[in-house]
Amino acid sequence: MLLVLIRKMVILVEFKKIIDNKFIFFDGAMGTMLQQAGLPIGDLPESYNILHPEIVYDIHKKYIDAGADIITTNTFGANTLKLKNSSYDVEQIIRNAVSIAKKAACEKLVALDIGPIGQLLEPIGTLSFDESYEVFKEQVTVGAASGADLILIETLSDLYEAKAAILAAKENCNLPVFCTLTFQQNGRTLTGTDPLTMVHVLEGLGVDALGVNCSLGPKEIRPLVDKITNYASVPVMIQPNAGLPRSKNGETVFDLTPEEFSREIRTMAQSGVSIIGGCCGTNPDFIKATKAAFKSLSPVKITPQKLTTACSSTKTIIIGQEPKIIGERINPTGKKKLKAALKENDLDYVLSEAIRQKEAGAHILDVNIGLPELNEKEIMIKVIKEIQGIIDIPLQIDSPNGDVIEAGVRIYNGKPMINSVNGKIESMKTILPIAKKYGACVIGLTLDEKGIPNTAEERVKIAGKIIDTAVSYGIPKENILIDCLVLTASAQQKEVMETLKAIQLVKEKYGVKTVLGVSNVSFGLPQRKLLNRTFLAMALAFGLDAPITDPLLESNMEAFHTFNVLSNHDEGSEKYIATYKNDNQKEISPNIEIHKNL
Amino acid sequence: MLLVLIRKMVILVEFKKIIDNKFIFFDGAMGTMLQQAGLPIGDLPESYNILHPEIVYDIHKKYIDAGADIITTNTFGANTLKLKNSSYDVEQIIRNAVSIAKKAACEKLVALDIGPIGQLLEPIGTLSFDESYEVFKEQVTVGAASGADLILIETLSDLYEAKAAILAAKENCNLPVFCTLTFQQNGRTLTGTDPLTMVHVLEGLGVDALGVNCSLGPKEIRPLVDKITNYASVPVMIQPNAGLPRSKNGETVFDLTPEEFSREIRTMAQSGVSIIGGCCGTNPDFIKATKAAFKSLSPVKITPQKLTTACSSTKTIIIGQEPKIIGERINPTGKKKLKAALKENDLDYVLSEAIRQKEAGAHILDVNIGLPELNEKEIMIKVIKEIQGIIDIPLQIDSPNGDVIEAGVRIYNGKPMINSVNGKIESMKTILPIAKKYGACVIGLTLDEKGIPNTAEERVKIAGKIIDTAVSYGIPKENILIDCLVLTASAQQKEVMETLKAIQLVKEKYGVKTVLGVSNVSFGLPQRKLLNRTFLAMALAFGLDAPITDPLLESNMEAFHTFNVLSNHDEGSEKYIATYKNDNQKEISPNIEIHKNL
Ligand SMILES: [Zn+2]
Ligand SMILES: [Zn+2]
Ligand SMILES: [Zn+2]
Repeated sequence: MLLVLIRKMVILVEFKKIIDNKFIFFDGAMGTMLQQAGLPIGDLPESYNILHPEIVYDIHKKYIDAGADIITTNTFGANTLKLKNSSYDVEQIIRNAVSIAKKAACEKLVALDIGPIGQLLEPIGTLSFDESYEVFKEQVTVGAASGADLILIETLSDLYEAKAAILAAKENCNLPVFCTLTFQQNGRTLTGTDPLTMVHVLEGLGVDALGVNCSLGPKEIRPLVDKITNYASVPVMIQPNAGLPRSKNGETVFDLTPEEFSREIRTMAQSGVSIIGGCCGTNPDFIKATKAAFKSLSPVKITPQKLTTACSSTKTIIIGQEPKIIGERINPTGKKKLKAALKENDLDYVLSEAIRQKEAGAHILDVNIGLPELNEKEIMIKVIKEIQGIIDIPLQIDSPNGDVIEAGVRIYNGKPMINSVNGKIESMKTILPIAKKYGACVIGLTLDEKGIPNTAEERVKIAGKIIDTAVSYGIPKENILIDCLVLTASAQQKEVMETLKAIQLVKEKYGVKTVLGVSNVSFGLPQRKLLNRTFLAMALAFGLDAPITDPLLESNMEAFHTFNVLSNHDEGSEKYIATYKNDNQKEISPNIEIHKNL
Repeated sequence: MLLVLIRKMVILVEFKKIIDNKFIFFDGAMGTMLQQAGLPIGDLPESYNILHPEIVYDIHKKYIDAGADIITTNTFGANTLKLKNSSYDVEQIIRNAVSIAKKAACEKLVALDIGPIGQLLEPIGTLSFDESYEVFKEQVTVGAASGADLILIETLSDLYEAKAAILAAKENCNLPVFCTLTFQQNGRTLTGTDPLTMVHVLEGLGVDALGVNCSLGPKEIRPLVDKITNYASVPVMIQPNAGLPRSKNGETVFDLTPEEFSREIRTMAQSGVSIIGGCCGTNPDFIKATKAAFKSLSPVKITPQKLTTACSSTKTIIIGQEPKIIGERINPTGKKKLKAALKENDLDYVLSEAIRQKEAGAHILDVNIGLPELNEKEIMIKVIKEIQGIIDIPLQIDSPNGDVIEAGVRIYNGKPMINSVNGKIESMKTILPIAKKYGACVIGLTLDEKGIPNTAEERVKIAGKIIDTAVSYGIPKENILIDCLVLTASAQQKEVMETLKAIQLVKEKYGVKTVLGVSNVSFGLPQRKLLNRTFLAMALAFGLDAPITDPLLESNMEAFHTFNVLSNHDEGSEKYIATYKNDNQKEISPNIEIHKNL
């Protein structure tokens, strides 16, 4: 018994190492197996944990005998909302389920199975994020206390729900957390999440493995799996169905044989999948056949791409390729109309600003609603929810207050950016744990207790301090962006070029991406947009990845679009030509002729 | 006798070395000495070379006895135009003058004195540049044949005349050439040349020493001398008058005593003067006193500034501080109106283009008049003369043809730029000797027999080849500018950023200045000025020193002015504010508010 315990501990602690060297096999379907064993259609499968533990045990045992390394508890629907009208409670069901599985698993591992709640979250449904969190928390708490070895969150089709589940798991137990979503044939989950977004959001939340389950057969999930393995840094897990479901005499059936199933799955080993199991329609024969098919294979190492990304639930913005515009207009500083709207709780105005910025070409929106008269935290949550309800681009949560940032980042659906941390010890201590916990990108401002240094070199030094500290908190370097800060040319003209030098140095030295609020440079001077436009072009030329600026100012967008042509990001100048071809005539006056210099 | 010859050869060959280590003393006035010896006022001083050689000899001898290292022949006015109505010819006068001086000099050196022709050159006067050249050529030829040791061109107040004289000297003998101009109390010569311009033009033409003579007393020339020594690379020479001239009983008299004179001159030793003599009102006592006053001093080494400059006769543009705009509009490529004007010999249109560009802020104007139907050389000369007659900014002579370039550079009044040489052996062999001979700046295009390379590195390599070859021709590095060439984004988009990289690399590696025709980048795309503006801002940020562009396009000048604010070249944003403050109101629409990001 001690030996088993030790082995399990080793497995858990060195999980990643083991996965790197060998494939891990999960079990297959539980529901269809229970039906075959007599569970009447329409009855609660989890009731058998109480009524027929021997049947559940028997199914587990068959999977163990087939070669599964991890079996999954019969708790897919064991949440308080689904059990509301049953005669069982969550604790009873889960405790029994884990106990049965452990008995069957012996030295193998037991995964606490957590399926979708079965109700839609806000804003589509009525269940709040916090409520869903509480549902999952109960499951996790009981499962962990009952002795499950890991948490498997699966068959979820809503990324937001997955976030609630993962947070519940991470905050209420120390077990490894695996999470697989279920996708439609269009390559997205029911609520629109694509594989790239799933990977970046789930990894950010700290899952130990991720992937896709149920959904489709092995052949159909192949394109999804290729995308997932292309982006993932953690082990990738698949549990496909035994083919596409088909209706036969009113019953759902799956056509693949264990051999066909295993042959298809085997082809996915090369793309980097390392954790394998089955979903609907599979049985121990499928696991056995698959395990046999994998005998001569070793897992292919995934090369993490280390992309810097911000995501909504349906869209991922990669920072570091073509520059990305972070819209700065949702910020009451100096904006009477927005101030008034926020004070009057008029979120329509805020939403219209969001829509206008997106339409003008913003890729990410900064959200700052700091006004001394307002409850910043409450409004931040409200504004984020509202904006996420109507537009799909990622948000950057901007506040000097750690509690506002955490509240915003927590409620956010996707992988947000945090604006900002800085080199002050207090700031790093407050903000970096939040960025780590929620897997958010965090912007580091190159200032510290002594203020903003004049020289590029000193700003680079602060950037280094922030990056080192962030990494020591476990934040991957690609989630750290640096804002080298620009001072006003009217007050500190000599220091303007230091910002550009700092951008270049920070990128060279640390390989991180950079953001910069460009508008500040022109404060106090006439015709600010002329200065901003030129400064933007210069900063982009120096490698600025994401300007924080006003996309409604045509001059800014002109600098952006033209830079993309000149830097070969807008290949074939297609976007540029589409945007500007019609302005051609009016712009060239007859006496200013086009001429070539060469 | 052999010994004397050898010593003179050593002095001539190692002239610079000697000057570095000791002061060289010239003599003082000849004219006033002759009058004291009986020359009637109004008579030709040079007639005494024939009529009273013993008197001339005696004056020379007194200067030698006073300590002069070099005495000056009595040939100040010995040119064919001044002698026209006399009974003497140039050859007779100069041959005798040199012969007398050599007898008196013994082992000391004899400078052939060449003064101003006495007639104004075109466009102020009627004497053509070529005619003035012929006048000087005769003097030089006879003087050298008679055995003068060096040529002293002095008391000239027209830089253009000095250029003719220096070219005549350099092309018709191998003797060292010294040239001193005479300045007014406003710090300029009669035709408006300032010390900086004088230094850069005369050094370019290859003088061995330069400076100021006559004009004023030692105290009054002090500010001029400080400027000259600040910019000069060759030894600096002064021959002031014995104070400011004063009229006394109808005679011009000078008030300084030899002691006062020498005391004033002594203070100029520290500023870098190394060749000293006297002009009007001085006599052997002045030379003796000055030599005595310098006994304990050593010449101060001049640190050459190695500035990259282009000059008209009255204005020097320093390239490498704030960026300089080279106006590109005088180029018929793609310009119907200019083409027509050139064909119809309508120079008014060309001149109006020159004026408009200057008024719009161009610092230098490119002049390209290449049309297959025209005699390019003839028109180039005409256009240069006309433009130089009405505006004072330097020109860049632009032609693919070496003979057109040489004709233009020769006739040009000042220090022009040559556009261009390239890495082809044929081009370098043709263009570089012209740049060397006339002291022009030359633009090296980074292309060679194989065309324009795609990568920055290969362009930098060609730049290196051009620079090395130019230096081997004796062209100072600061007179070489590199144009890294930009290809069109429409055809070779990937290569656009290579140009910017190349600019940075060329500057880092070779320390030379860069020019770039920016407009080419947008050829074939809509709204070219948007692209040009952004590309200009980017190129300036990468260190471009002088864009070749259209200053009439507001968008270009906006990029330029804003860059100067952001790069701290426009200190205190003064020019920017002066240019744009009045546009403030119309530019900021009420619903686009100013906001700070920080
Ligand atoms: Zn399934
Ligand atoms: Zn004089
Ligand atoms: Zn004189």
